[in-house]
Formats: sequence, C-alpha cells, structure tokens
Amino acid sequence: MTQNIYDNPEFFAGYSQLERSKTGLAGMAEWPALRALLPDMKNKHVVDLGCGYGWFCRWALNAGARDVLGIDVSEKMLARALNEPGQDGITYQRSDLETLMLPEAAFDVAYSSLVVHYVENLERLFNVIHRALLPGGSFVFSTEHPIYMAPRRPEWQIDQEGRKTWPLDSYLIEGPRSTNWLAPGVIKQHRMMGTMLNLLIRTGFVVRHVEEWRPSDQQIVERPEFAEELERPMFLLVAVTR
Amino acid sequence: MTQNIYDNPEFFAGYSQLERSKTGLAGMAEWPALRALLPDMKNKHVVDLGCGYGWFCRWALNAGARDVLGIDVSEKMLARALNEPGQDGITYQRSDLETLMLPEAAFDVAYSSLVVHYVENLERLFNVIHRALLPGGSFVFSTEHPIYMAPRRPEWQIDQEGRKTWPLDSYLIEGPRSTNWLAPGVIKQHRMMGTMLNLLIRTGFVVRHVEEWRPSDQQIVERPEFAEELERPMFLLVAVTR
Repeated sequence: MTQNIYDNPEFFAGYSQLERSKTGLAGMAEWPALRALLPDMKNKHVVDLGCGYGWFCRWALNAGARDVLGIDVSEKMLARALNEPGQDGITYQRSDLETLMLPEAAFDVAYSSLVVHYVENLERLFNVIHRALLPGGSFVFSTEHPIYMAPRRPEWQIDQEGRKTWPLDSYLIEGPRSTNWLAPGVIKQHRMMGTMLNLLIRTGFVVRHVEEWRPSDQQIVERPEFAEELERPMFLLVAVTR
Repeated sequence: MTQNIYDNPEFFAGYSQLERSKTGLAGMAEWPALRALLPDMKNKHVVDLGCGYGWFCRWALNAGARDVLGIDVSEKMLARALNEPGQDGITYQRSDLETLMLPEAAFDVAYSSLVVHYVENLERLFNVIHRALLPGGSFVFSTEHPIYMAPRRPEWQIDQEGRKTWPLDSYLIEGPRSTNWLAPGVIKQHRMMGTMLNLLIRTGFVVRHVEEWRPSDQQIVERPEFAEELERPMFLLVAVTR
C-alpha cells in the first residue's frame, strides 16, 4: 500500500496550512496550465485520482461535468470533502491507488494532481486508468518533476559566484526518495521523465502534451519568489489520450 | 545559419581525436540504445541529418538500406566521408539544417545523432523531416539532454559531504548556451524536454519512445568513469513516427 502520509496528523496539520489547501485551485500556481490541458467538461464522466478536499471535483461539476468520482486514500481529506455543500453529482470513494479497481470504459476524463509520485506500481495504475477511459478519453495529470525529486539533498545551493543552483544527482537511479516535507520520512517514487512517458506509451496512450511547468511572467511579477522556479522545474504536467 | 563549428580548425582537430571519431559507432556509448530504436533497415530509403564522417550511413547500407542520403554542413567532415571505400548507395550532400530542403514522402527512416541541439529553427527542421518521411516512417534522433545543456556553469560540483552534484540552473530559460568544448564559444540551443516533445507532436509526429540514456551495468564495469553518468543524463534519445 502507498504510504498514507495525508492521514499522519503532523503532515495533515501542515498540509492544511498550505495555500493550495486553503484556497483550492486558485492557490495552485500550476492550475491555469493544467486546466488548459483539460477538455471541455460539459456532460463528461470524470474521475479524480487523489481528489483530496475535492476542489477539482467541484470545479468539474461547476464546469458542466455530468458526474464526478473523487478517489482518495486519506480518510481525513475525504471527511472534509464530504462536508462541502453543493456536490450533487460527486461521489467520493476511499481507495488506495495501488490496488484501485475502476469500471471499464466508464469515464471521458481522468485527472490526477500531484499524486502519481507517491504510487509504487505506476504501470498497474496507468493500465487501470487506460481501461477505465472511453476511446478518445483524456488523462491529464501533474506530478513532481523528476529533477525536483531526484537529488539526495533536494535543497538550493549557492555557488562560488553567489548563484542559486539545484544540486542534481542520482537522476538515473530510480526508486524511493525519503524527504522531510511537512513530516519526516515522506516517501516518493522517483522516475525519469522518459520512464513515465514510455510507461504511458506502452499502456496504449497517445502523448498529447508534456509541460515542465514554469510560472508566467505575470505570476513572477505578483510573487517575486517564483523567479527561482526558472532554475529547475518543480512540476511536470502531462496530457494523454486513450 | 547554424554555427558551423565543425569547420573551425581547432574544433575539428579536437573532434577528430574523440573516441567516436576514431572508431565510429563502436565508440559511441549510446549507440546500442539508439540502434534499438531504429526499424529494420532492409530496403529502406534512409536520410542521416548531420552525418559527419558517414559512419551511420555506411552502417545503414551494410544493414540492408536501399539508399542513404548523408547531409552535413561541414566541408571537412564530408571530405573525409567521401574518402571511405564501399559506399555504393550513399549520397553525401552539403547543407545547413536551418535551410535544408528535402523531397516529400521520400524516406522511410530519418536519423540524426547529436545535431539538433545546434539547430536554431527546430520547428522548421521537424516540419521538413515530417514531410520528407513516408507515412509510417520513423525519425530517430539523439540530442544533448537539456539537463546537461542548461546550466550557466556545466561542471560537476562537490558538495559539503564530498558528493558529486550537477549544478542545475536556468533549466526553464530556453535559448543559446555558449560553452568551451574543443573550441571556445561553441553555441548550442537549450530547449526543455517538454518543448522538444511538444514541437514533435504539433508537427504531427507520434511519440514512440523517450530515453534519457544511461550506461548499462556492463558499460560501467568496463569503464568505471561512466558511473557519474547516473547522476545526470547527458543524452536524450527520441523515436517518433509519421
């Protein structure tokens, strides 16, 4: 089973203080880029893998989706999601993405935000998603970028001339990475970009778009701390179709 | 016009001393991985973009290609290529890849080894290659990996604990990079992986395989200095079809 870090009280307390937890999609700097990869939601059957508080589920419903299935392993997150008003058309389900089963050819759109880097058996999950999509259906997801995840010491360094650099190493050594983010010992699965893309292709998906997210110039003006995101990518956004 | 660095005497003298210049494909550590992405050459019409000394052209001919067109901008390299024996079926042509024209639907296979990172107008070149391929035809190429190319100071650093790291920065800032490799001021064009893949997709190609090259365990045993290639990728290999 994937480490269910979101039900760790320390992690959950920290996570619920993040901007993206408090303001939802509006607090996700990468959301405009991710949204641009999504098809029109009108009358669509949608599944959100790792739905958390259900922000995306509600957005999809408001954007015209016929129904939305939100899946998460975290009891705490689903409890909060269920408390929201105006969710007629959304079903929440507690499942581990390592063992998830989905009905075949049941969805037009599968979405997943910053979750697949926790999944150990990604080949299995991609297969489940592929089978669950209708022909022509879309799978759009974000993940931590492997450049961000790979290093043994994922912290900025200052070089001899005062420039900020990202000390990349072990990029080609795939496998678990343990970091202290909100709680000690959070386990993520490092995979190269090529590995993820080849898994998708072998599963039968057609790759439509691969985006190494960068803040827009406007975002950098509004939040100058985003400028460092130009040095190394933090997020990878991918759109594929069945 | 692309900087024709290969006709710079200093660069050419250095280049001709590289293992890959002296022993050809056998001296290219990434060749087995690149070859694995190529279709069967039997009776194929093949074009090699940036053919250099013509090693690949001769390999393709020996592997059964019907005919091979080798294209390069460097007079010195083509002069050496033309001097080789046993090339009945190979045509060499001097052209700049920025302005290259190719006949339409004329080739089954397009190949390019470590050249596209010199090309400024890659969108144009990908379009020319797409139109030059027969439906179902393959384009297989290698390029310097953007992680390798991006940094302002592309040299290993040793961290506080003696570990070798690659000081990545400016990955999301695309454009020219000037390095001193064999000669001062060699200009390469840094593009993110996503940018290259999206260009290929928009051109109409279907992405088949994306490989961030790593030496095999056997290669590391034979040449222990290859172990550092596990820290950051040097080459990116891509296979697409029309």
